[in-house]
Amino acid sequence: MRTRVGIIGAGPAGLLLSHLLHLQGIESVVLEARSRDYVERRQRAGVVEHAVAETLRGAGVGGRMDREGLVHHGIELRFDGRAHHLDFPDLCGREVVIYAQTEIVKDLIARRLADGGKILFESRATAIEDIDTGSPRVRFTDGAAEQVLECDIVVACDGFHGIGRASLPAAVVRTFDKVYPFSWLGILADVPPSCDELIYAHSDRGFALHSMRSEQVSRLYLQVPNGTDTAEWSDERIWDELTARFALADGSWELKRGPITDKSITPMRSFVTEPMRHGSLFLAGDAAHIVPPTGAKGLNLAMHDVMLLAEALTAWDRDGSTTLLDSYSDDALRRVWRAEHFSYRMTTMLHPDPQGGDFERRLQISDLDRIAASRAAATEIAENYTGLPQV
Amino acid sequence: MRTRVGIIGAGPAGLLLSHLLHLQGIESVVLEARSRDYVERRQRAGVVEHAVAETLRGAGVGGRMDREGLVHHGIELRFDGRAHHLDFPDLCGREVVIYAQTEIVKDLIARRLADGGKILFESRATAIEDIDTGSPRVRFTDGAAEQVLECDIVVACDGFHGIGRASLPAAVVRTFDKVYPFSWLGILADVPPSCDELIYAHSDRGFALHSMRSEQVSRLYLQVPNGTDTAEWSDERIWDELTARFALADGSWELKRGPITDKSITPMRSFVTEPMRHGSLFLAGDAAHIVPPTGAKGLNLAMHDVMLLAEALTAWDRDGSTTLLDSYSDDALRRVWRAEHFSYRMTTMLHPDPQGGDFERRLQISDLDRIAASRAAATEIAENYTGLPQV
Repeated sequence: MRTRVGIIGAGPAGLLLSHLLHLQGIESVVLEARSRDYVERRQRAGVVEHAVAETLRGAGVGGRMDREGLVHHGIELRFDGRAHHLDFPDLCGREVVIYAQTEIVKDLIARRLADGGKILFESRATAIEDIDTGSPRVRFTDGAAEQVLECDIVVACDGFHGIGRASLPAAVVRTFDKVYPFSWLGILADVPPSCDELIYAHSDRGFALHSMRSEQVSRLYLQVPNGTDTAEWSDERIWDELTARFALADGSWELKRGPITDKSITPMRSFVTEPMRHGSLFLAGDAAHIVPPTGAKGLNLAMHDVMLLAEALTAWDRDGSTTLLDSYSDDALRRVWRAEHFSYRMTTMLHPDPQGGDFERRLQISDLDRIAASRAAATEIAENYTGLPQV
Repeated sequence: MRTRVGIIGAGPAGLLLSHLLHLQGIESVVLEARSRDYVERRQRAGVVEHAVAETLRGAGVGGRMDREGLVHHGIELRFDGRAHHLDFPDLCGREVVIYAQTEIVKDLIARRLADGGKILFESRATAIEDIDTGSPRVRFTDGAAEQVLECDIVVACDGFHGIGRASLPAAVVRTFDKVYPFSWLGILADVPPSCDELIYAHSDRGFALHSMRSEQVSRLYLQVPNGTDTAEWSDERIWDELTARFALADGSWELKRGPITDKSITPMRSFVTEPMRHGSLFLAGDAAHIVPPTGAKGLNLAMHDVMLLAEALTAWDRDGSTTLLDSYSDDALRRVWRAEHFSYRMTTMLHPDPQGGDFERRLQISDLDRIAASRAAATEIAENYTGLPQV
């Protein structure tokens, strides 16, 4: 099998790249280890930056997002029993869309298949070869036979555990890593959200996040110790703990409870690989970098990576220019490090560190107080959260 | 001996308080353990916030500061071999004055003595008694005899190692503490500053600060490991290390060298005591809180404490109102925690942590890059550095 751009991974990054290339008349094939059903059910992020939403609209795949997604004009910070609203349009003229990553994946799969695009599900990439040449190959297996995808460029959008990153020569790779001393216990619940906006809550009991998937489905998170088993957390214990962490000092807020349909644990990690390209192999999304979810940057970073790549591959396809391909790694990493810093800042500001002391907790409150009091400090959060036009 | 307000410590805070009270016709006595000569030579901070400079001017003790001090309109951040200037008037409409704390002390001592003020040098306070009553007493010794200062209010401006903080009942006190894994090696050198402004330099070799005492005297600092002995650092080694840490990638900057007249080690610590008042005993300045010097907040916080206290004591003296005295601790602590957070932020952004990894260093560069690129991020630094009008 042969194509111009071989893409590993049918997550939002691989699918968007394949679609953006198709719009420019560039052929690609997407290899996906899992089934279509599996990837369409995977629960992930749900906050779409302004620029990413604009890209989806411009590429003709934002219709359902605009009908069903929820435009959010801000977030609420809750700390010390108080609530403070950050008004994004007022602070930076942008907003975000709440639309689950899994819905973006469904939209992109449907569109690629409708356009005759090739997505090979249940086709696991096993090796990426000859990346030092202009004719790299991806070996993959559909369970029965091993096959080969020959291409000019390979883009690995295959996540943190994929083979993409591992296929870069060890000698050229540098990695940066941080593991946090806490995880998130996330739930999906069949209950309308208790508030129109996301609530990022700092409490002495730990961090909590109020979020939603739709007007009928709430998505909530609790900071828990690493190694926590969801079996330790009964539904009632989860609701009681969420209620305690979101409580306002004046008792003016109530968390709605409903049937919990999903419980999962998310470890908190920061990770970066440099460079994001070697020869004809390019990395995008979680294959190259991980952020803790507190800044809502994981999905958005992945989309920005392939937006850059689509532009670079279009220039390369159109007139043979490799200028943008050559600068891809540096260009992408500027945004990656900005997002890494912002995600670290949001994470360390909002999570009491179980190994930290009272001094650190007071600093967190002072930091949050300052954001509530200062337009400059609030703008800095708003600009990063809604996504920087340029970095 | 009897007075209305007994002040322990003839540092800038105790002296300014005594002077501000005098201007309101309130009698005070200042007890100072050291000699006049000693306190007038003690080398400390040198950056005066806009509002503190205005207070000194308004109190008639800013004349020499305005003649000899250097008004600074910004600072330079240096990192990754690059330089970025923060323009304070443009960002926040304020500026700072470079004028050594020891000169402020000289000006205030001269003024208090000229006004007939009582400063008892070489008079070490040994006990503060009866603070639960309206008639507290300070026992002190001048080396020969023990004496007693009877007062209505005691204000301890006696620094981190003074008896003031230790005189609060242990049961009511809460302390917050952080020790950093590095110190500063500071030098005074008889050489004109190499630059008109302060330079805060982040390098892989460690932090360095370029500062000045006057147009003829440079003040420079190097991040060094805790436990460093100045004997390990010859003059040549110091200049070589400073040169390396301030180096710009394009080689366009040169550090002037000259005779080093003083070398000292400053450990880096954050510390807060709550509350800052119990009964008739009030704490101000380092007696209640310590910041690492990176944010230039130690002197300024101490001055803000006594500015609050002077106002509160004036209201109390004039009409017996204790409202401001009762809110002093809360009012002061809001600014203290803001300054603690800012000092922590500046310190952790600019000092490579010897126990930290490459990830943390890249975050520092990303943080600095953002300040260089974003008006919101730069404004947040400028507002805090020049001093917030209100907190």
